[in-house]
Amino acid sequence: MLKRYLLAPGPTPVPPEVLLSMAMPMIHHRSPDFIPVLESARKGLQWLFQTKNDVLILSSSGTGGMVGSVNNFFNAGDKALVINGGKFGERWAKICQSYGLKVEEMAVEWGYTVKPADVEAKLKNDPDIKGVFVQAVETSTGVYHDIEGLGKAIKNFPNTLFIVDAISAIVAQDLKTDEWGVDIMVGGSQKGLMLPPGLAFVSVSDKAWKANEKSKLPRFYFNFKKERENLVKNQTNFSSPVTLIIGLNEAVKMLQNEGLENVFARHARLANATREAVKALGLSLYSKESPSNAVTAIEMPDGIDGQAVYKTLREKYGVTGAGGQDRAKGKIYRLAHLGYADTFDVIIGIAALEMTLKGMGANIELGKGVAKAQELLMQ
Amino acid sequence: MLKRYLLAPGPTPVPPEVLLSMAMPMIHHRSPDFIPVLESARKGLQWLFQTKNDVLILSSSGTGGMVGSVNNFFNAGDKALVINGGKFGERWAKICQSYGLKVEEMAVEWGYTVKPADVEAKLKNDPDIKGVFVQAVETSTGVYHDIEGLGKAIKNFPNTLFIVDAISAIVAQDLKTDEWGVDIMVGGSQKGLMLPPGLAFVSVSDKAWKANEKSKLPRFYFNFKKERENLVKNQTNFSSPVTLIIGLNEAVKMLQNEGLENVFARHARLANATREAVKALGLSLYSKESPSNAVTAIEMPDGIDGQAVYKTLREKYGVTGAGGQDRAKGKIYRLAHLGYADTFDVIIGIAALEMTLKGMGANIELGKGVAKAQELLMQ
Repeated sequence: MLKRYLLAPGPTPVPPEVLLSMAMPMIHHRSPDFIPVLESARKGLQWLFQTKNDVLILSSSGTGGMVGSVNNFFNAGDKALVINGGKFGERWAKICQSYGLKVEEMAVEWGYTVKPADVEAKLKNDPDIKGVFVQAVETSTGVYHDIEGLGKAIKNFPNTLFIVDAISAIVAQDLKTDEWGVDIMVGGSQKGLMLPPGLAFVSVSDKAWKANEKSKLPRFYFNFKKERENLVKNQTNFSSPVTLIIGLNEAVKMLQNEGLENVFARHARLANATREAVKALGLSLYSKESPSNAVTAIEMPDGIDGQAVYKTLREKYGVTGAGGQDRAKGKIYRLAHLGYADTFDVIIGIAALEMTLKGMGANIELGKGVAKAQELLMQ
Repeated sequence: MLKRYLLAPGPTPVPPEVLLSMAMPMIHHRSPDFIPVLESARKGLQWLFQTKNDVLILSSSGTGGMVGSVNNFFNAGDKALVINGGKFGERWAKICQSYGLKVEEMAVEWGYTVKPADVEAKLKNDPDIKGVFVQAVETSTGVYHDIEGLGKAIKNFPNTLFIVDAISAIVAQDLKTDEWGVDIMVGGSQKGLMLPPGLAFVSVSDKAWKANEKSKLPRFYFNFKKERENLVKNQTNFSSPVTLIIGLNEAVKMLQNEGLENVFARHARLANATREAVKALGLSLYSKESPSNAVTAIEMPDGIDGQAVYKTLREKYGVTGAGGQDRAKGKIYRLAHLGYADTFDVIIGIAALEMTLKGMGANIELGKGVAKAQELLMQ
């Protein structure tokens, strides 16, 4: 017998209330039954994305939302500035390239954040740049990029769109889409929103819709204009992922009951406890700047393989976190505190990490990280 | 947002596999659909109760099984020896008295166990005693009574039945019903069996069935002879609690996959870690002898009210354990490690207790109990 705990940065645990709502019998997405469901989801997403614009709901993984954010607003040959400070920065570059955009990468060392002033300087030198692409939380390094600062830097360039992959950030970080001038913000269901994978969300500004009129890139499945035309009639362009949208409404209801400020404060509290527990154990954070409130990336001690840590946590202790990706593979272990997460998720994650590292021969004092987390989480 | 954890000595958490099995559409208990369901349950219970006799399945709480264990085997005026070392020992006495039995109580100080030699001496002095009633685990004090020793002591008295309330003990303790000469063993669904409340189980020996023939106490709902007649036809006397029996089969399947020896070893391991963690914190066990593997009763430090501890654990940390009952009320707090319980249930319980006691001003070093539990649970 081994109880299982999901502490990965997506998918995250789905609350019982949401699971139950999704277990209700199927309704038809073109019937009147579905109208209030989608209407409620639209309103909920506007609240969560802190935007007055419609938030499109796509039946896809988060990456589908990223793809649509490229092929609906640009043209082949357009210059795109991609902030690349991790695995998902790379993904923006690959998507842009696959549609023929000219990608200029602003490389950021893994574990560090982009400086808004650098982006502003770049745009001043090259006003032809049509879009700046970034992650709010770069999941592979645990870093939160300064979306507010970037928004301010980009706002003054009328021909440049600001596109944010907030898939891992939504719910964990306070993202003021409209106020900060984010033109396109992409979210996904399987992270802070406490749902299974299968939904992408995209908010689109007026400025972006104007760019959409001039975009000629091929698109059929991710056709945002058609999605918007359907959305105002409380429909989606193709078969609606009914179950997930019913679950979304339940999840948003839970978040609304908690209150958005409290939701952010909870994530900040859990993230802080995790980080301080890690430091108390004598370990280092992989995020050298601006660690996110969604996931904590932890450097492994010398001689300890992060992939072996991942495996032992899963197989011996039932805890599924995440290892490192790409160049961080083997070097780090990641614990999420994202979505349906509370005090004892941090305690479980830290306790299991302590036991695993100790069992692998690392110089770890059992309970020391837990005690630090307890101290902070008591407050 | 507050995640909830159930660490009470019943009801206990129900595993997802069992919940899902119980969410299947209803079947009819007098239709052929139900025959294999009940047949499987019968076999599973015989395996779990370590008996060749049929184990009756009653639609009631565990107390229903206790009542039936009195009114099916005795007569008004019969002498009953009741081992009373806690709240549930008292219950045996009350049930016997309500049916007119002459109750002789063998008082055992709360937190201590009955000595089989004392029972044997009593029976030698008074061979008229028709039944000895005891708890395997006295939930109110956390003590495990020596069922094997009592069985040996009682076995030689041909007119005396040995009746064991094993409601909190089944699954947590190795109880060899037949080998140890237990005539009537009562179980319930909501403890080690990882089910919701609603089922009682009673195994009955040949010796007890002989006594049943002479028993004239009034009975209609708990009529064991009729239950047995139905059971051999894979039926129950009245409407079968179909959903719970389907869940029972799923729960037994999980226990069989784990193996009975492993199930007992897991409970012993979790109980030991809990006890040692408690001691590492400088606290005392309320069970002065033979602490059970089902639940640990912890004495509260001077000046700390156990009921306030219960309330804070629930309301601030989402952890529902149990306070003390009756004379132990306010003096103890109880953490179960029973049924669907694993390593991190112990970690959560101890961590939450540490935080609660520390927050109430007790002299507690955060993480100290957790570290001891981690050390033991790593092995």
